[in-house]
Amino acid sequence: MAKKKEQPIILITNDDGITAPGIKSLIEAAKTLGKVVVVAPDKAQSGMGHAITIGNPLRLEKVDLFTDIEAWQTSGTPVDCVKLAVDKILHRKPDLCISGINHGANHSINVIYSGTMSAAMEASIESIPSIGFSLLDYRFEADFTAAAHYAHQIIKTVLANKLDKHLLLNVNIPSVPKEKIKGIMVCKQAYAKYKEEFDERKDPHGKKYYWLTGKFINFDKAKDTDVWALKNNYVSVVPVQFDLTNYTLKKLLEKKNIFK
Amino acid sequence: MAKKKEQPIILITNDDGITAPGIKSLIEAAKTLGKVVVVAPDKAQSGMGHAITIGNPLRLEKVDLFTDIEAWQTSGTPVDCVKLAVDKILHRKPDLCISGINHGANHSINVIYSGTMSAAMEASIESIPSIGFSLLDYRFEADFTAAAHYAHQIIKTVLANKLDKHLLLNVNIPSVPKEKIKGIMVCKQAYAKYKEEFDERKDPHGKKYYWLTGKFINFDKAKDTDVWALKNNYVSVVPVQFDLTNYTLKKLLEKKNIFK
Repeated sequence: MAKKKEQPIILITNDDGITAPGIKSLIEAAKTLGKVVVVAPDKAQSGMGHAITIGNPLRLEKVDLFTDIEAWQTSGTPVDCVKLAVDKILHRKPDLCISGINHGANHSINVIYSGTMSAAMEASIESIPSIGFSLLDYRFEADFTAAAHYAHQIIKTVLANKLDKHLLLNVNIPSVPKEKIKGIMVCKQAYAKYKEEFDERKDPHGKKYYWLTGKFINFDKAKDTDVWALKNNYVSVVPVQFDLTNYTLKKLLEKKNIFK
Repeated sequence: MAKKKEQPIILITNDDGITAPGIKSLIEAAKTLGKVVVVAPDKAQSGMGHAITIGNPLRLEKVDLFTDIEAWQTSGTPVDCVKLAVDKILHRKPDLCISGINHGANHSINVIYSGTMSAAMEASIESIPSIGFSLLDYRFEADFTAAAHYAHQIIKTVLANKLDKHLLLNVNIPSVPKEKIKGIMVCKQAYAKYKEEFDERKDPHGKKYYWLTGKFINFDKAKDTDVWALKNNYVSVVPVQFDLTNYTLKKLLEKKNIFK
């Protein structure tokens, strides 16, 4: 007798917090594809990078926010959420970890600052295939229709194809109506960055303080980058790795033998 | 008439905070090699990953902590420090950015969680050659003698060799007396990780909370990893990159053409 195929367990987290509309859209996108469990921060954590909570205790509470979906909120970062989910909630590795849908872009260099992607990266380190999703619209009232549609399609494809236990995808969706999106494009991370502009102000006591703002500049002229894809109304999919070794430079340094 | 050679400007930051002994050792290691300017967080920021401060204003204050060295403390993260230093203090890019000396290891997968390395990475993105230094001893009273000796040597070598405008090195120093250190080894990042162990407790009101702890496990048997080098009493130097694209997986996904 053939063993009944078990539903895959899909862990969902994000960095905008458990009450953000984006995570609701991701639950909708995933819930027919497996058993969904949500473990997300109890407040927005944007810009937290790959932060973990060392100096403070972590709280973990079951919440009833989504119909028929097991959900937990934590006082920690997105990375903490993945660690807690595996160790304290699921007591096993999920079959897939998905993070988002982030309110705002995480293409190019943003992958490094992104809490959404750091949660996905943490899962990947733990040999859990994972995907981060971001929509190029940071507003609370952003329209997640197209993003959820493509998220569903990509999750389905990843679950159907055993690709790599460390699979890690950075998916960004352009902020245009669904019918304008031309398809999905596999890309590399563009070399782009923010030109910082600190907004200098004075507090009521005359002391200076600064708000960090920045202008996005793309230096990368290649046509297989995520920035190019998004500009041309494609959903960008960048495969990401957590081995940060620069092997070209490693060879050069070994050849030059300058460190003695 | 030959133009007088200007001193290189060396920006120093860290993630243990401006009062940590490690930054003092790094200043000592660097101060004869250029004009040192310190911009560091006003409190410890360990485990902050590549965090930036978006939701809060930043404070920046000149401090008089080190003899004859210009120093500033900020309310921000290590990454904020680099951004503020370039934009609001130096008004130019420094010739080198060094971060540390961190109290505790940043080898292998730690590079991803490390505030020390994220400051250095931020500089590298900005085309500022940069180096993060960490000593494998997290204690306040750690002995930085050997670390400072090797930091001096590596900074000197990097300043003397124009290698790459995005040069980014992750340097770890074993916690042994100087005479036991066998030399400097160029390495790759080991695939190692933490096995989480959440220490579960109850607060005085009977509610559960967790402390994140973890046991370090090295999966990487290669002999050119940072973990191997450190175990064998070498200073490890891993060249790091901020392009996280997994090109092997990119090719595979393009070939399989599974996303339609």
